[in-house]
Amino acid sequence: MTDLNIILFDDFETLDVFGPVEIFGRMEGHYNLKFFSEKGSVVTSTQNVETLTRPFAEITPGGILLIPGGMATRTLVNNSDYTAKLGVMAEDAKYVLTVCTGTALLAKTKVLNGISATSNKRAFEWVCSLNHEVKWVKEARWVADGRFYTSSGVSAGMDMALGFIADMHGLQTAEELAFSIEYTWHRNKGVDPFAR
Amino acid sequence: MTDLNIILFDDFETLDVFGPVEIFGRMEGHYNLKFFSEKGSVVTSTQNVETLTRPFAEITPGGILLIPGGMATRTLVNNSDYTAKLGVMAEDAKYVLTVCTGTALLAKTKVLNGISATSNKRAFEWVCSLNHEVKWVKEARWVADGRFYTSSGVSAGMDMALGFIADMHGLQTAEELAFSIEYTWHRNKGVDPFAR
Repeated sequence: MTDLNIILFDDFETLDVFGPVEIFGRMEGHYNLKFFSEKGSVVTSTQNVETLTRPFAEITPGGILLIPGGMATRTLVNNSDYTAKLGVMAEDAKYVLTVCTGTALLAKTKVLNGISATSNKRAFEWVCSLNHEVKWVKEARWVADGRFYTSSGVSAGMDMALGFIADMHGLQTAEELAFSIEYTWHRNKGVDPFAR
Repeated sequence: MTDLNIILFDDFETLDVFGPVEIFGRMEGHYNLKFFSEKGSVVTSTQNVETLTRPFAEITPGGILLIPGGMATRTLVNNSDYTAKLGVMAEDAKYVLTVCTGTALLAKTKVLNGISATSNKRAFEWVCSLNHEVKWVKEARWVADGRFYTSSGVSAGMDMALGFIADMHGLQTAEELAFSIEYTWHRNKGVDPFAR
């Protein structure tokens, strides 16, 4: 079992988190889904979902880190203490996955320098402006570069999660999973209907 | 503001709830999203999400009731005390929305008798067997019949939620909302790629 360490903060975007959670959570016997926030408090999404979390201090290295986006990222990118903590966790992780403006947070840690990445197309200029050393890819549903998977806005996180499952467990497993949740998977990560 | 009263129970399916929550939660100034369980405890989804809830007793009549599916529905359909409570809440609601096997729970309350409805295509025979007085529709992404909206499996709940928004606030609002979350909406409720 691999830990899927999901980072939450107040004003996170609901589907950024729970779309991928649905997909990873269905891979029985493969992933331990764990929810973390800086202090381990109850965290409230922009859409009013209150979720229990554990503190960052309890994250074990070697897992998969999932960083969502949301309105909170607009201020969190300026919290250097917070992004420094994320940077350490990202260094320690086997894989790092970001959804939407979660990529903005990761871009502030410098671990993305020299790495190809994408983000929400509604906030793309802003995200790019945060770090010019990232190889930003505008037209992509998601981008996989080494141990980094970054996705476009909100619902693209589900497509990226299925892409990650396909890379780790084979295309058929991902296809079957998508079918089981009656989801039409955008399987081609390079096709982005929202890039223009 | 209309209350969106979301029913949770242990072993609910994560995306059944949080897909629609993402969509309703983005309609600023229109819907109060509230999470309820029978006792008002912390509820854990099958994918390990722990969410705070309020007790059923705090639900105010006249709102929208959202009932998700999940493994728990397989046993909850046999809990006549529980389905009786759901029946009262469904009678008191202005609209009732079900996702996936949430329709099974509603079918046990009899409020769906004579109403057209659908459910998860992976569990369709079982759901139909629970109440032969419902007008079951196999090929539908979702079905709208009066104050009842019922959807197919898991991710179909998002399409139904957007369909509900379109019916209440106009097609353009729903289209813009889907675009804002970079979601390819299945706008045609009669087209169901998972029905065969």
